[in-house]
Amino acid sequence: MKKNILVIPGDGIGPEVTTWGKAALEKIAEIFGHEFVFDEALMGHAAIEVTGNPLPDETLEKARKSDAILFGAIGHAKYDNDPSLKVRPEQGLLKIRKELGLFANLRPILLFDELLQASSIKPEILRGTDILFFRELTGDVYFGEKIRSDDRNTASDLMIYHRYEVERIAHKAFQAAQQRSKRLCSVDKANVLESSRLWRETVQEIAKQYPDVETEHMFIDNAAMQLIKNPKKFDVVLTANLFGDILTDEASQIAGSMGMLASASVGESTGFFEPIHGSAHDITGKDLANPLASILSAALMLEIGFGLKDEAKLLVDTIDDVLKEGFRTNDIADQTTNRFKVLGTAEMGKLVLK
Amino acid sequence: MKKNILVIPGDGIGPEVTTWGKAALEKIAEIFGHEFVFDEALMGHAAIEVTGNPLPDETLEKARKSDAILFGAIGHAKYDNDPSLKVRPEQGLLKIRKELGLFANLRPILLFDELLQASSIKPEILRGTDILFFRELTGDVYFGEKIRSDDRNTASDLMIYHRYEVERIAHKAFQAAQQRSKRLCSVDKANVLESSRLWRETVQEIAKQYPDVETEHMFIDNAAMQLIKNPKKFDVVLTANLFGDILTDEASQIAGSMGMLASASVGESTGFFEPIHGSAHDITGKDLANPLASILSAALMLEIGFGLKDEAKLLVDTIDDVLKEGFRTNDIADQTTNRFKVLGTAEMGKLVLK
Ligand SMILES: CC(C)[C@H](C(=O)O)[C@@H](O)C(=O)O
Ligand SMILES: CC(C)[C@H](C(=O)O)[C@@H](O)C(=O)O
Repeated sequence: MKKNILVIPGDGIGPEVTTWGKAALEKIAEIFGHEFVFDEALMGHAAIEVTGNPLPDETLEKARKSDAILFGAIGHAKYDNDPSLKVRPEQGLLKIRKELGLFANLRPILLFDELLQASSIKPEILRGTDILFFRELTGDVYFGEKIRSDDRNTASDLMIYHRYEVERIAHKAFQAAQQRSKRLCSVDKANVLESSRLWRETVQEIAKQYPDVETEHMFIDNAAMQLIKNPKKFDVVLTANLFGDILTDEASQIAGSMGMLASASVGESTGFFEPIHGSAHDITGKDLANPLASILSAALMLEIGFGLKDEAKLLVDTIDDVLKEGFRTNDIADQTTNRFKVLGTAEMGKLVLK
Repeated sequence: MKKNILVIPGDGIGPEVTTWGKAALEKIAEIFGHEFVFDEALMGHAAIEVTGNPLPDETLEKARKSDAILFGAIGHAKYDNDPSLKVRPEQGLLKIRKELGLFANLRPILLFDELLQASSIKPEILRGTDILFFRELTGDVYFGEKIRSDDRNTASDLMIYHRYEVERIAHKAFQAAQQRSKRLCSVDKANVLESSRLWRETVQEIAKQYPDVETEHMFIDNAAMQLIKNPKKFDVVLTANLFGDILTDEASQIAGSMGMLASASVGESTGFFEPIHGSAHDITGKDLANPLASILSAALMLEIGFGLKDEAKLLVDTIDDVLKEGFRTNDIADQTTNRFKVLGTAEMGKLVLK
């Protein structure tokens, strides 16, 4: 199989971890005899520094031409500390999601048995958890009109959904539920928000086309609580852009660490694969970042993007083995015992490749 | 001290639990020689059934005349299942918050040592946690304009903040931080939302007036994760209406159960005190609800509403004793051991009063 893959390392720990996601893809190509052709492009703060634009035209062009994109992370402390800056790294990520029509963000909460102890949640609560989030990614308050009054004293963002936007992601989620345990939980705030009432209505309608799937509706506040109280009760979770952002980060504690979770954004064409962690300025360049989420992003690219299940499985199994042998990066090591061999980003990356 | 207290039992388990919050206030009046004069009023589904209005004028009038309000819960499955209904219970709660100017919702995460085991989070992660949330309560996407297009295919809610709204709650939160450990974390989504950028800017400005308080800004997705990963790192948390709704429900797992948390809404005049749990249709009328959150709401009324610290402390200490003696309601009992004496709502209420 021949594929063109665009690598966008982005900001912060992005470049450090993406190196290993890319290397994993190269290794897989070698083992299975595929031809993966790589190109690279700028986005976020890295792109602003060079071009003044968080998503340069060149990057977008390359993205459109590629079969899949491996992305690192975005964001920089400078902008976080100064909310008045007009050009911001995150605009690049939001724009590429919109331009490529990446309306469905899949976030599997993959639980490695070996990491049950790394979570702040009790292992007996976690064991057996297997959740697949479908986060809507090109609508909601992320993309609605943003207004700042002339006197700068009033600011607003429009939280808005169109029925077709809810329908298309709902179909994807229900179809996935049919392949899994046939349970779907849709999360909204329909007791307060009109956009959530449209969301709930639409999901109720679509649900009728999937009578074999058991559908539940839950308010976001309750879901944020239930997710920790009893994660096993969830299977496919369908939710809007903002609520999905919050819930999936929260759910990273189920997997032991944000450093272990990858996501796939799909939609109209090219798929986009990235760790769910952020740019983590505080540990950038210190060889402390966990490269496993980027390698798992590569695995998602192989499986969801290219339909290469065996190749994806090899990566996941290898990570499992490395964890079984007691190797950890800092974020997933239990600091209170000496049972683990704690590795830096590069050592961990190399080990998985071996 | 003489005080007029309005009791609004509301919907679902509201009436069952509020009975005990009220009884606790009566007992305190008796012991300390205060005169608490009670009145009662309708709100939510209960009010719709009788008057067609989730917040009847009579309730609002009584509320304005009272010194404090003890509220139960709101909501009903009928409306949750039919998002197209125009008149909804929650409108009553939102309107009374707005009408009474209750812009600051204080949610202390009170940890009873005895309940460390009741949480899904590891006790060693929880021990020592003490968080006070300041949730903004009369702005945000809750109150911004709601629009449904004529063809019903598009729906929106305006997420909007004015600078003065952020300022007034920020002052309250910083003042509280000064009385506590002098740490404040403000939560927003300033990397995406304009309203959050106004929020962050404003909090940065106000922070300069409280140089003794260490201020941190965190994105909501990260906060939802950190809250479970390491709850001890938080002290005062300041956040907007929607983010506060989500974070505080999530934080209820820190306290072992939603059934243990109370909140105080304050602002321009009369204070409003309520459990953070919802109407819980599934257990309504089954004598399964935990009355402790309502009794703790009464304690907040005594402390924050009336400045009666000793009286409030007596209630909290009594609950602590009851828990120490091994008594539990269903939600906080560890089902895997027989160590606890599990009580119904009424038995638990009576026991605390004794
Ligand atoms: C960086 C930010 C814009 C982004 C989001 O909020 O979508 C990130 O948190 C994510 O979840 O991918
Ligand atoms: C019932 C609902 C409108 C309410 C809210 O979202 O504010 C509740 O969840 C709360 O937290 O008090």
